[in-house]
Amino acid sequence: MKEIKIIAFDADDTLWINEPYFQETEHKFCALLEDFLPHHTVSQELFRTEMENLPLYGYGVKGFMLCMIETIAKVTDNKAKLELVNKTIQLGKELLQKPIELLDGVEGLLRKLNGDYRLVLATKGDLLDQERKLINSGLEKHFHHIEIMSNKKKEDYQKLFKHLDCSPQHFLMVGNSIKSDVMPVLELGGNAIHVPYHTTWAHEQVNQTIDQPDFIQVKKISEILEHLN
Amino acid sequence: MKEIKIIAFDADDTLWINEPYFQETEHKFCALLEDFLPHHTVSQELFRTEMENLPLYGYGVKGFMLCMIETIAKVTDNKAKLELVNKTIQLGKELLQKPIELLDGVEGLLRKLNGDYRLVLATKGDLLDQERKLINSGLEKHFHHIEIMSNKKKEDYQKLFKHLDCSPQHFLMVGNSIKSDVMPVLELGGNAIHVPYHTTWAHEQVNQTIDQPDFIQVKKISEILEHLN
Repeated sequence: MKEIKIIAFDADDTLWINEPYFQETEHKFCALLEDFLPHHTVSQELFRTEMENLPLYGYGVKGFMLCMIETIAKVTDNKAKLELVNKTIQLGKELLQKPIELLDGVEGLLRKLNGDYRLVLATKGDLLDQERKLINSGLEKHFHHIEIMSNKKKEDYQKLFKHLDCSPQHFLMVGNSIKSDVMPVLELGGNAIHVPYHTTWAHEQVNQTIDQPDFIQVKKISEILEHLN
Repeated sequence: MKEIKIIAFDADDTLWINEPYFQETEHKFCALLEDFLPHHTVSQELFRTEMENLPLYGYGVKGFMLCMIETIAKVTDNKAKLELVNKTIQLGKELLQKPIELLDGVEGLLRKLNGDYRLVLATKGDLLDQERKLINSGLEKHFHHIEIMSNKKKEDYQKLFKHLDCSPQHFLMVGNSIKSDVMPVLELGGNAIHVPYHTTWAHEQVNQTIDQPDFIQVKKISEILEHLN
């Protein structure tokens, strides 16, 4: 990959752990409802509720909390006690206060790249929550610009390019989601490196093989150094 | 006011109606609970809950919804039916889909200023919701830059100045909140014009008289033209 001037990093499950925390919360939530329905049925209904509400709520923990609460009424036919709603709010508040655990090699990589490239953080989720995670991560100092996006579709990246005053061939996106970090960037003529994480939210999963020169997949984030010159 | 290069506008209750919609929702919410407690007691408890959760949820409708739900359990001592939670979620979803009603003179003012100044929108709230309102307002085309902020304190404006590459004396903030739009900007050496709105959220209310040359109060937003040259 040549001519790269700006490297943008996804945050959740690219720089730090995120999805396992959501899954842990969902697991505890399903356990609250196991007198009514088995875990996987509650999970399915929760996912359906999340997809229904996504255009209205967007991404992030607060929308997830509201969807869990809505799911309680659905799966219990309004018969659950209000107590369960309280417990669910508590689970959400705990999720909002999880410690930040950096993934292997992240800190060293950013230190090495800084100076040679302009580094950008490009993430989606709740504004305040993503800011909190960035501050707690200690990584803020490495980034020239922080972009918290309501979505990561083609038009969102177009806005980002314009905002950064960067043409796509000089832009590299690094992230764990083929759907959000790779495909839209490649379609616009940019570069992308996929760093898979061991678990992915169902909404981000795609079945697609990508075979084009501007795309690379690596096993560990530190490997991206080998592809830059 | 001389030397102004960038004019930043607050959005909610400065460019379009917002607080009356929140108050209408709160009124309907209190009505749901009137079998348990009088309106003003529920309102008080809701406000207390909002203030408690503000550091965790930040500003915006989704946090407001979660606080209403939490308040149900508090004021009914967990005795309310789950049905009330559903109705509250419905109220929140309606609030998220309110039409955008521009305040008087806004469109014409922005058209006149555009070209002579770089116009910025600086607002706080849920990311997706503020974007939705901006798109539905039809005002997006007038703005050079959109900044959706998690807060509007001194340090948040400092970041904004840095981001816009603008020194405070060239920056004018226009908004309806003395606390969020005026005071922090003046403290940093910037300029501010206060356009009071007929109703203000309790959290934004301050009792303070401001008497300094960089501050002006106008009755209608179109009047700011008279103070620019």
